[in-house]
Amino acid sequence: MTYDDPIAALATPFGRSALAVVRCSGEGCLRLLAPAFSRPAALLEAESHTVLYGRLLDRTTATVVDELTAVVFREPRSYTGEDTVELVCHGSPVTIEAVLSLLRRLGFRAAEPGEFTLRAFLAGKLDLTQAEAVAELIDARTQRGRALALHRLSGSVAERINAVKARLVDITAAVEIHLDYPEEDSGEVEAPIDAVEAAMVDLQRLAATYATGRQLRDGAPVAIAGRTNAGKSSLFNLLLREDRSIVSEVHGTTRDYIEQGIEIHGVPISLYDTAGLRDTEEQIESEGIRRSEAIIEGAAAVLYLIDGADPQPEDERGRELGRVRELCPGAVIPIWNKVDLTQREAPRGFIALSSATGEGLQELKAVLCEAVLPDGGSEDGAAVIESDRQRALIERAVAALGAVLEGLQQAMPLDLVAVDLQDALSALGEITGEVASAEILDAMFSKFCVGK
Amino acid sequence: MTYDDPIAALATPFGRSALAVVRCSGEGCLRLLAPAFSRPAALLEAESHTVLYGRLLDRTTATVVDELTAVVFREPRSYTGEDTVELVCHGSPVTIEAVLSLLRRLGFRAAEPGEFTLRAFLAGKLDLTQAEAVAELIDARTQRGRALALHRLSGSVAERINAVKARLVDITAAVEIHLDYPEEDSGEVEAPIDAVEAAMVDLQRLAATYATGRQLRDGAPVAIAGRTNAGKSSLFNLLLREDRSIVSEVHGTTRDYIEQGIEIHGVPISLYDTAGLRDTEEQIESEGIRRSEAIIEGAAAVLYLIDGADPQPEDERGRELGRVRELCPGAVIPIWNKVDLTQREAPRGFIALSSATGEGLQELKAVLCEAVLPDGGSEDGAAVIESDRQRALIERAVAALGAVLEGLQQAMPLDLVAVDLQDALSALGEITGEVASAEILDAMFSKFCVGK
Repeated sequence: MTYDDPIAALATPFGRSALAVVRCSGEGCLRLLAPAFSRPAALLEAESHTVLYGRLLDRTTATVVDELTAVVFREPRSYTGEDTVELVCHGSPVTIEAVLSLLRRLGFRAAEPGEFTLRAFLAGKLDLTQAEAVAELIDARTQRGRALALHRLSGSVAERINAVKARLVDITAAVEIHLDYPEEDSGEVEAPIDAVEAAMVDLQRLAATYATGRQLRDGAPVAIAGRTNAGKSSLFNLLLREDRSIVSEVHGTTRDYIEQGIEIHGVPISLYDTAGLRDTEEQIESEGIRRSEAIIEGAAAVLYLIDGADPQPEDERGRELGRVRELCPGAVIPIWNKVDLTQREAPRGFIALSSATGEGLQELKAVLCEAVLPDGGSEDGAAVIESDRQRALIERAVAALGAVLEGLQQAMPLDLVAVDLQDALSALGEITGEVASAEILDAMFSKFCVGK
Repeated sequence: MTYDDPIAALATPFGRSALAVVRCSGEGCLRLLAPAFSRPAALLEAESHTVLYGRLLDRTTATVVDELTAVVFREPRSYTGEDTVELVCHGSPVTIEAVLSLLRRLGFRAAEPGEFTLRAFLAGKLDLTQAEAVAELIDARTQRGRALALHRLSGSVAERINAVKARLVDITAAVEIHLDYPEEDSGEVEAPIDAVEAAMVDLQRLAATYATGRQLRDGAPVAIAGRTNAGKSSLFNLLLREDRSIVSEVHGTTRDYIEQGIEIHGVPISLYDTAGLRDTEEQIESEGIRRSEAIIEGAAAVLYLIDGADPQPEDERGRELGRVRELCPGAVIPIWNKVDLTQREAPRGFIALSSATGEGLQELKAVLCEAVLPDGGSEDGAAVIESDRQRALIERAVAALGAVLEGLQQAMPLDLVAVDLQDALSALGEITGEVASAEILDAMFSKFCVGK
């Protein structure tokens, strides 16, 4: 696989702004650009990490395309490892089009999505977990998600994986000594069993962080449920008002129920206001309730509201709460609402809340975050993965190690054990990209944005 | 007026992308940034036009905000003339927020719209016509508009204005000699009359380019009109298909008629498909026709279609065309449509067109562009203005020169003539910003985008 032909792409969003950055990279990048730059010699001789001010010229029409700065990065000290120029031009859509059109005519190919990062990977600047972290960083929806992605970008996942791999290599060596010199020992391979178990536990812990990573990536679905007039919409609006809406919505908003993305203590949440839950004969309402039930079934947590000022009989309340608990596989948080209007104490296990005064809201938020972020997601410095690819490979490695463990415990032939060890090692190698097919790379980088 | 406190702003559009640029400028810019940069000494010692790779750190939480490059421009070799750092970070909305939030805590004020360019003006890097050209370049809707704005950015308007000013200074000198030594000459100030006339003509020519500039900025409204079934929608769709839609719409699209921005030979056009024009008793249709008439009244040109395959009686056709000509102050272009379906020759003055085969389309486009771009707008190298402010000041100067001319021709007292000359000079001085009040600057730069 060689990719070093000159490519170019807009690296900033397309739109009106002060500046836009067009990235050029590849073999002959400077040589191709020079004739179109008002200071060709300066560009060709520019040292790495320097900036030239000049004009970009269309020699065929003898016109100026833009006045701009050219930021020069010399191979291998660039993002891609190749000669790279970042043209910082005026942030005008027509200017961007003119610059890209000129670059195409100069011989630059339009870069594929993620192609700059792919080249960085191929040049050994990043491993695959770091490359994925680049896309995850750009797509981060909260500050916490950003911090975790940045941590991965620094290599935290690769570090964990490589530590396990080092162990497995040691185990493999021990197994192979037994294979080569079976007569020298009684056949027991004691030490490796502990080592394999430790490696498995480490990988399982890493795989378990995926739930957190996914929650931070996608947002946890949280439903507000309860009878009509229990105060669901007031709570919905209170949470929206208190906590900023997240940067951009990934969920549709055209459905019948109300859904809004918010961020509570750095945790992105898709908040659903559902229809009132009660038995009804009426066709339209029962359709609404059917939808509410579907939302509750898919929720990571349900905020179940009881009107404390006008509570149901206790047995009925118990029945309804039980039904919600049956429907929802996640956490159900019972809330005793409207405490500003009543003297009645909240039953045990209920959060006492007033949507009107805000009383109880902080407790509700803390309990909710706890409920939707399974492992807390706050271990500073720990790697948290959010890539489906990484998780699948870790699970493959864990399964292979399970077979290794079984083989060792049951004193199966060591050459069979060695095969499973190799399988675990190759799964881990795929995670960081030591072993990576063109198909894997294509599938991964095609999800990137252009210009990255 | 001193503005040199440290400011910061996002200079690229807010959104997901590979890169984002956050601009920092002002007194102490590097000193404020250094403690938050992973390589403080390198940053403080960086030469102008160099790039440092590093991490931006939030020391209060001991966390990394982003891995990025810092592009350093040293005073006076920067856009603003001040020390400037462009932080090129990951193009993630949450990263951008984190960077801006950190910069605020470090002591950078959020920049006002256009504040970087205002500083460039105050530092003498740009005159006001060039500063306006920056905004005009970013807002350009077509390649032609971009090229003209870039031409202004290089100082073409200021050059024209300064040439006229030089002449007026000579005239003023001649007039003042007469004022100081009235006895030495017979009182006739011959040469200056020609010179004043020449200056006026030059300014009037420049003012006349405004129509072109405005057309390129706003797009010319062009209506497609004619009877029901004359082929209006086919022509509308043909033009949309043939010519790319312009980069971004400035017009609303929620109205009843169909409107679409297109670009023909570099001329931005807002194309309107109107309801059929015919007398009707029906309430709804007559409302549609009322709207069509309003569009025709506001159009720079009307493409008036006749169905050549099923033409009206000649007198009726003449009546309807006359009505359109009455309504439209701009050009009315009669078109003989559906020539693929008929042997009938197009009457004189009509463009023969087939929306089905595309026959006649090129001629139609050429005639249309000619009609909506009053002075051709194509004089290469000529300054074309699009600023209301510049036009108003040029007109003020022309009026003052008119008074000068009258004074000279009628041998009015030369001290009165000198006052009008001064008025002309000061209007021209305002154009380039030699004379500029805080109010003028505020009004001008507040229209810029943030980060520019």
